[in-house]
Amino acid sequence: MRDAYLIGAGQSDYGAFPSESYRSLFRTAVEAAVESVPKGIVVDEIDEAFVGTLGVGGRQLGLSGPAVTEYAGLDGVPCTRVENACAASGFAVRQAVQAIKSGMADVVLAGGFEVMSDASSDATKYWLGVSGETEWERLSGTTFSGVYAQMASAHMAEYDTTREHLSRVAVKNHANGAKNPHAQLGFECSLEDAQSAPVVADPLNLYHCCPTSDGAACALVVGEDVVDEFTDDPIRIAGVGAGSDAVGLFQRDSYVGIPASRRAAEAAYGMADVGPDDLDFAEVHDCFAIAELLAYEDLGFCERGESGRLIESGATELGGDLPVNTSGGLKSKGHPIGATGAGQVVEAFKQLSGEAGDRQVENARRGLTHNVGGSGGAAVVHVFEREDAEASA
Amino acid sequence: MRDAYLIGAGQSDYGAFPSESYRSLFRTAVEAAVESVPKGIVVDEIDEAFVGTLGVGGRQLGLSGPAVTEYAGLDGVPCTRVENACAASGFAVRQAVQAIKSGMADVVLAGGFEVMSDASSDATKYWLGVSGETEWERLSGTTFSGVYAQMASAHMAEYDTTREHLSRVAVKNHANGAKNPHAQLGFECSLEDAQSAPVVADPLNLYHCCPTSDGAACALVVGEDVVDEFTDDPIRIAGVGAGSDAVGLFQRDSYVGIPASRRAAEAAYGMADVGPDDLDFAEVHDCFAIAELLAYEDLGFCERGESGRLIESGATELGGDLPVNTSGGLKSKGHPIGATGAGQVVEAFKQLSGEAGDRQVENARRGLTHNVGGSGGAAVVHVFEREDAEASA
Repeated sequence: MRDAYLIGAGQSDYGAFPSESYRSLFRTAVEAAVESVPKGIVVDEIDEAFVGTLGVGGRQLGLSGPAVTEYAGLDGVPCTRVENACAASGFAVRQAVQAIKSGMADVVLAGGFEVMSDASSDATKYWLGVSGETEWERLSGTTFSGVYAQMASAHMAEYDTTREHLSRVAVKNHANGAKNPHAQLGFECSLEDAQSAPVVADPLNLYHCCPTSDGAACALVVGEDVVDEFTDDPIRIAGVGAGSDAVGLFQRDSYVGIPASRRAAEAAYGMADVGPDDLDFAEVHDCFAIAELLAYEDLGFCERGESGRLIESGATELGGDLPVNTSGGLKSKGHPIGATGAGQVVEAFKQLSGEAGDRQVENARRGLTHNVGGSGGAAVVHVFEREDAEASA
Repeated sequence: MRDAYLIGAGQSDYGAFPSESYRSLFRTAVEAAVESVPKGIVVDEIDEAFVGTLGVGGRQLGLSGPAVTEYAGLDGVPCTRVENACAASGFAVRQAVQAIKSGMADVVLAGGFEVMSDASSDATKYWLGVSGETEWERLSGTTFSGVYAQMASAHMAEYDTTREHLSRVAVKNHANGAKNPHAQLGFECSLEDAQSAPVVADPLNLYHCCPTSDGAACALVVGEDVVDEFTDDPIRIAGVGAGSDAVGLFQRDSYVGIPASRRAAEAAYGMADVGPDDLDFAEVHDCFAIAELLAYEDLGFCERGESGRLIESGATELGGDLPVNTSGGLKSKGHPIGATGAGQVVEAFKQLSGEAGDRQVENARRGLTHNVGGSGGAAVVHVFEREDAEASA
């Protein structure tokens, strides 16, 4: 089948922007993506679009896809809104790949957005809850920090995972985010800071939780037969994989892993014909610190139960064997729900283009992005590689 | 590229079902679709799913796709929620075709659902409004009947379209719906009834407006290389097309047509290499009577301004040259928003399988479905044909 290539990606800053609208943020991301294309592109060349958003705040719950693409100048182009909670735009990128491989489109925009900072505390609780199981989680008072706290407790009980391991995720991701000009919380934090923050949902404290954010991000995906028009240095989307699961955590057999992530990774590695050892970097879904540790295990970076030791070893820091969340991750870069998956692709594009500045991974040739919806009701994984990457699988 | 085939489709009844949930309705539709496959299929053979829903009532706003597919027994299968307002599951079917053509899936479920009957009158007004332009339509009090009333007024002012033409759409669709056991309003109505109903938004009266509905519908789409496992009488999805537009009606140059429908039809006819004269039947988006008249013109069934004369001629009645909305359409069959597009595909499947009972179109070999989001912010068109259909374009 026809191969799909990533020719550009860009994002707005992540943060709280009361003077911006969801439309203006998305347009900023489209412009940044367009500007990033090495040999140039104009918006008129885009012939299909997929937009991810949860719709926090309810400002445009229906047709929010066309509402933002029309504003960004994609007149009349088919646009489909995709929603799988926090994995919305990771799935939008997957749809872009399907559209390219199907031959039904040549140049596809895949992006997402969210505006969360203008909601009241109650509204935020509501909107963050809607991706949990409604009847038996949200309506009975379970929050997302509560759900992930249960996962963390289970992991700590079953393995030798500690609060310090959780805090080390925060320290690492803040160290990376401090090097990312788009990051919402672009400051470093010490292990002491991270250990002593107020509890949110035991054992998770404030530094073990990502912020709520405004922001947008976009990727541009094209077919192999047109890629030369846009770049001399093509980045192939070598693998895409996705999986689903019961939406409620309580409906699953085990709390110490996310089966949808494993299914997605297996499919993506299979399509790309690579394994975790072949990766130079990864952006993983660290909505809570425990989520990053689970990702290490679900994506095969280490054995089940070994993630605490992996973060402790420094292997996932910048300069380590497999740097994870060089962008700062959801923790430091921010987590505007619908934008997050596409935002991870922005980091992959920058790393593989050698344009990640102070956080550049040396000789980055192949990277992975991993985006989770809710507590694991859906997950999507992509593998990106430069043409000169060598498969050593 | 690999061809996509429709091997089955099924739906729940449309109506008000207080004892059902969105999950049970969707499961009923999955079971009906599975049962319709001529040579049989089991749910485990499905390897990808797309689910359309607007999320009316907000009962599961995030991850509603996996929430229903897991309940229907599709364990772990990648599932993506697709939302383009009332065209949600029409776009889900389009995504199924892209997934098949991409080679990334072999057997795809595309469906949708909505539960609307348990909302209060105010909540219904809110949820029906969310697919309008939020800032300048919904929040300033414009309803969907108001938006389509503006289109009707414009058409009546510019051409010789009358209230009686609108009423004839209702009379025809109720006559068809009376023959459909799944229809919500499965009774006939006289021209006098339709003409004398209370006004909703002048010039539209009650019989010019579709009801709010609970319901679900699903289609099963497979690749050409596996279609023989499921049927000896394959129905090819010969054409798929989509278009977008500004979400607000006021943002468009003209009110007497829906540009997104024209774009979608052009693309679908082009891919199928057929034209409107080659169709044996069509299911079009008649959320309001004027919408069916606009569809006649946008889909090329007649010239601009001639739709009043076309409905008057009887050509679109059962037994006419081009029967339209043999299912009863949104008007009589019902309009559970997220289910509607897939529900149209159910009718196409029944007609092309010769299983439409009293409303069977004789010798039906090729048919079209047309699904609109909002007042035309998005539209999607599909052309289905039996292998023995002759293109006479």
